[in-house]
Amino acid sequence: MNLRAKPVLGLTLGDPAGIGPEICLRAMTAPAVRKLCTPVLFGDAGVLKRVTKGKFPIADLRVVSLAEWQKIKTMTAPLIVDCATMDARKIKPGKVSAACGRAGYLYIEHAINAALAEKIGGVVTAPIHKEALQLAGVKFPGHTEIFTALTQAKRSCMMLYSDKLTVSMATTHIGYHDVPRKLSVGRVLNVIELTAATMRWMLGREPCIGVCGLNPHAGEHGLFGRREEEKFVEPAVKLARKKKLNVVGPLVPDAVFTTAQRKKYDAIVTLYHDQGHIPFKMLAFDTGVNITLGLPIVRTSVDHGTAFDIAWQGRADATSLFSAIKVAAGLAVGRRRK
Amino acid sequence: MNLRAKPVLGLTLGDPAGIGPEICLRAMTAPAVRKLCTPVLFGDAGVLKRVTKGKFPIADLRVVSLAEWQKIKTMTAPLIVDCATMDARKIKPGKVSAACGRAGYLYIEHAINAALAEKIGGVVTAPIHKEALQLAGVKFPGHTEIFTALTQAKRSCMMLYSDKLTVSMATTHIGYHDVPRKLSVGRVLNVIELTAATMRWMLGREPCIGVCGLNPHAGEHGLFGRREEEKFVEPAVKLARKKKLNVVGPLVPDAVFTTAQRKKYDAIVTLYHDQGHIPFKMLAFDTGVNITLGLPIVRTSVDHGTAFDIAWQGRADATSLFSAIKVAAGLAVGRRRK
Repeated sequence: MNLRAKPVLGLTLGDPAGIGPEICLRAMTAPAVRKLCTPVLFGDAGVLKRVTKGKFPIADLRVVSLAEWQKIKTMTAPLIVDCATMDARKIKPGKVSAACGRAGYLYIEHAINAALAEKIGGVVTAPIHKEALQLAGVKFPGHTEIFTALTQAKRSCMMLYSDKLTVSMATTHIGYHDVPRKLSVGRVLNVIELTAATMRWMLGREPCIGVCGLNPHAGEHGLFGRREEEKFVEPAVKLARKKKLNVVGPLVPDAVFTTAQRKKYDAIVTLYHDQGHIPFKMLAFDTGVNITLGLPIVRTSVDHGTAFDIAWQGRADATSLFSAIKVAAGLAVGRRRK
Repeated sequence: MNLRAKPVLGLTLGDPAGIGPEICLRAMTAPAVRKLCTPVLFGDAGVLKRVTKGKFPIADLRVVSLAEWQKIKTMTAPLIVDCATMDARKIKPGKVSAACGRAGYLYIEHAINAALAEKIGGVVTAPIHKEALQLAGVKFPGHTEIFTALTQAKRSCMMLYSDKLTVSMATTHIGYHDVPRKLSVGRVLNVIELTAATMRWMLGREPCIGVCGLNPHAGEHGLFGRREEEKFVEPAVKLARKKKLNVVGPLVPDAVFTTAQRKKYDAIVTLYHDQGHIPFKMLAFDTGVNITLGLPIVRTSVDHGTAFDIAWQGRADATSLFSAIKVAAGLAVGRRRK
């Protein structure tokens, strides 16, 4: 394998009624993106025609059908795969619909299959809409669950990445009350290992990982809480260190995210959704990258929604998508070295 | 009552072996402090003599005994009340001791009594040491509990105040697991009311208060959690609105602390320690003010510890103490108007 070759990255268009089409098109033609990777967009030519008001295909973008895509072996130029999932004339920009939910899901399915077949080196996703997905009868609540199921990943977790702070989460979309029972030495160790592996690919060196405690002041030696730090975090950190990982914890949650403290760690493992999301969103609102760790393929995503209120108006900001592509390209190259 | 008169504020010296003595002395002589209030320091003359290497009394500071203090009716100049609690020669700077723990507690007791008797308009505390307090046989874990007990307050809560963010907390030093059962409509309503009253005194107008949800995305209409938002937060917000308070909630915890969102609220009510402390410490590390709400007296505190590692070296930063005095002065004046 050529370690220096630019990776081929699949982009998924997201919900056609959202800002996905316009930010994806911008990425497909951006010199900054093409320098990093050869992008392949999974979408609908009809949607792109409508979004560009007929000015499509634009630039040098070649459009192929799914049948043609199957025959392509090597890619050297940007490509649009027309998945032909829907009648684009029926789309109302900014409106939730089953047809758009179904389309958004099918783009992902095609991209995952291409990644599993190693035709592309990773998948970067534009935003889909939970409600549209439900209307289309798709049973998964979001991207992370679709990717985990379709790639048959045994262990996975969510990471939020930015220049200022990177956090991964041992639990995510569950209620506050359910967090302690979902924690275990194995789960915390898994998330430490997944986080360390990803940061290693990203940085090209052994990363330093911090792990938060659960209780105020990380329990202050049993003063607060039910010794969750001693039960779950300390043993997981010990096991990770035995595996030669550079891990520190349990750390005091309200201290570790201060400017001076957070700089000591390449990534911080948090134990629940808001422990990681509150500091991350404060530092990198709408500019971060969401990464699913533990998959057999690379997957990153924008850290924002479909923004239906400004869809198809050409006003959407593609910063987060560009960051997601940059991170995916880095991971795709980093993984080759593993 | 003269609404324009400068308030008299009691300062407590804190643990004599920590940075309390030096930052308190700095405050007593600072023009910025004297402009805001007439400060009365409860401490030990012997300790101050040692800390200043014999150069005491300094400046224009008058020192009186406890007996003399009892006879004083009105104060117009800064004053030091020598509580004579300990033999200062025995202090080892930066070391935990029962004698220093006891001294730190007695300063607080004298200051609270003076405030309850309305001889002073509020109390500003320098840091004490939990372990020293325990060694001295004091059963309270910290300032908040001492003040709540000695003033026989029926409902109280902790607020962290800074120019950038102000948060109050419905629960504080309890384990993660115990938070949901400590929440009730009454408790959340109490904290909303205490927060609104304090911000009203501080700002001189009706404040806008935000209230966080407990679960990721504030539960997303029952998708995550056990509908704690619907059970505790929504009814409390409704009741507060009936009382003409300007309150919004339940708010999404990982969204409300972003730059754009947090500016909408004068203060944010959080439901557990780290929900408030993580964002606050990120924005105002070591410069914030800790306020105990719900007491019959004004009480503010520095938002840092005894800093034993740099005690008695003249290197301690008095910024947080100056802020605590400023806030206490504002509250003491604001309360007169209630």
